Amino acid sequence: MNIPDRIETGMQTAIRFATANGCPPRLGNALRHAVFPGGARIRPRLCIAVAMACGDSDPAAATGAATAIELLHCASLVHDDMPCFDNAQLRRGVATVHVEFGEEMALLAGDGLIVAAFETVARETQHAAHLTAPLIGIVAKAVGSPYGLVAGQAWESEEQIDVVNYHRAKTASLFVGAVTAGAVASGGNPGEWRTLGDALGAAYQVADDLYDVLGDSGSMGKPCQQDARNGKPNIIRELGVEGALRRLRTHVEEAAASVPDCLGADVLKAMIINEATRLIPKTASASAA
Amino acid sequence: MNIPDRIETGMQTAIRFATANGCPPRLGNALRHAVFPGGARIRPRLCIAVAMACGDSDPAAATGAATAIELLHCASLVHDDMPCFDNAQLRRGVATVHVEFGEEMALLAGDGLIVAAFETVARETQHAAHLTAPLIGIVAKAVGSPYGLVAGQAWESEEQIDVVNYHRAKTASLFVGAVTAGAVASGGNPGEWRTLGDALGAAYQVADDLYDVLGDSGSMGKPCQQDARNGKPNIIRELGVEGALRRLRTHVEEAAASVPDCLGADVLKAMIINEATRLIPKTASASAA
Repeated sequence: MNIPDRIETGMQTAIRFATANGCPPRLGNALRHAVFPGGARIRPRLCIAVAMACGDSDPAAATGAATAIELLHCASLVHDDMPCFDNAQLRRGVATVHVEFGEEMALLAGDGLIVAAFETVARETQHAAHLTAPLIGIVAKAVGSPYGLVAGQAWESEEQIDVVNYHRAKTASLFVGAVTAGAVASGGNPGEWRTLGDALGAAYQVADDLYDVLGDSGSMGKPCQQDARNGKPNIIRELGVEGALRRLRTHVEEAAASVPDCLGADVLKAMIINEATRLIPKTASASAA
Repeated sequence: MNIPDRIETGMQTAIRFATANGCPPRLGNALRHAVFPGGARIRPRLCIAVAMACGDSDPAAATGAATAIELLHCASLVHDDMPCFDNAQLRRGVATVHVEFGEEMALLAGDGLIVAAFETVARETQHAAHLTAPLIGIVAKAVGSPYGLVAGQAWESEEQIDVVNYHRAKTASLFVGAVTAGAVASGGNPGEWRTLGDALGAAYQVADDLYDVLGDSGSMGKPCQQDARNGKPNIIRELGVEGALRRLRTHVEEAAASVPDCLGADVLKAMIINEATRLIPKTASASAA
């Protein structure tokens, strides 16, 4: 099975368990709305790509970890879109969960996705007990406090924002989680892969800032100029568009160079370079050509 | 170490990890506010009591599971108190998390506690890999969708509420989780313990309904008459106070009778009967004496 099929199958299985017979109907609909149709599924693709580069010795564990990472990403989008944060109306071109189902259902759907993520890792590693605790630990660190997504979002509510910790926690942590979980699921050494996650997370943060400034809501499926509206840091204000594009390319080169010696290193490096071109907003690549 | 000390040590360890160096300061304060000082810690006490009745062969795993159960209970209180649900101002006699720290921090603190719960199980079972996936599975089922806390809360937003599924998911599921996790952590058979969790959950639901109707906010640390105000089902409307007290006693007797044959059965039965007297509001026991 190819990488996108593994991810969608993993997501469908997780949501089938969470919406099984007995589930309150509106909660079931909210859970499905939160994850289907998906976005680019960047983080789980990366997770499985690293697992394959390491030999893919346990595909179920790798797909389970990738699914968990994506469920947690979706949960964070549902909660971040809520009125007390971004109050976003659109996500992936359709109404956000709280607009479609109400705030209370958005809060619960996010909670349910977090739980489903950990349940998925446990279920998909039942046959390989030595993997469960390490993978749960990696995934939890990527999304919890003090270094994961929850902490990253919380920095926005502090009087003094620590921009380095903020971006690392809010964006890079889940990339690091995806990469190291993929490695661990295939018997790799997570420490050797951390730099790749950090570099890709930094690249993605620059791309996200570029989209926020240059993108239009039609092509992105979400409103742009949200950072300025919400008083969030954006690297374009510091470096300008040209500077940000240079920074993005540097991070991608760092990422490719960091891939450790392994069976699938060349394929993975080519994929990283190829994926990176998709990160750059079309308007920016035209202006920088 | 006695049961209360095991629980508080477990909670302190979990929160120390979640608020370690680098944590956004307000998030750290919100996390601590959500769990200290604790309430009655009924569910984790039950979890450890069952583990002890089964021989307590792995105290770290049992305490880890108990801690996770209580972290998830605290998370559900933080989210349920928010304006889109109960809009509660007081909890355990002090301001709720969203009143003290704002809605956004309450949302994140709840999310962070959910993640910390699963991280705790993984960390406290690292030495016993065969326990990690089963315990994560039990805990996730107790709080997720379709049968756990998240689903229970979601039933309140359905047009047609399924009262049996609602109470089972919202209240009994976490008692079942506590009891079966305690058994599994000590090598017991979870199937033999499910009835105890169901019966105690049902007893607790009746007690909660009695407090809501009879309690006063001074002694409970939270407002009463919330069910009528929020349009939630309350068994007192159906059975009256006397009928509800009889129902509560029946559930407690079922609970004590359901304890399977094990080393610590007699001690556990005595504890269940003793605890049950604490569940009955003083005003109700006086009127029914």
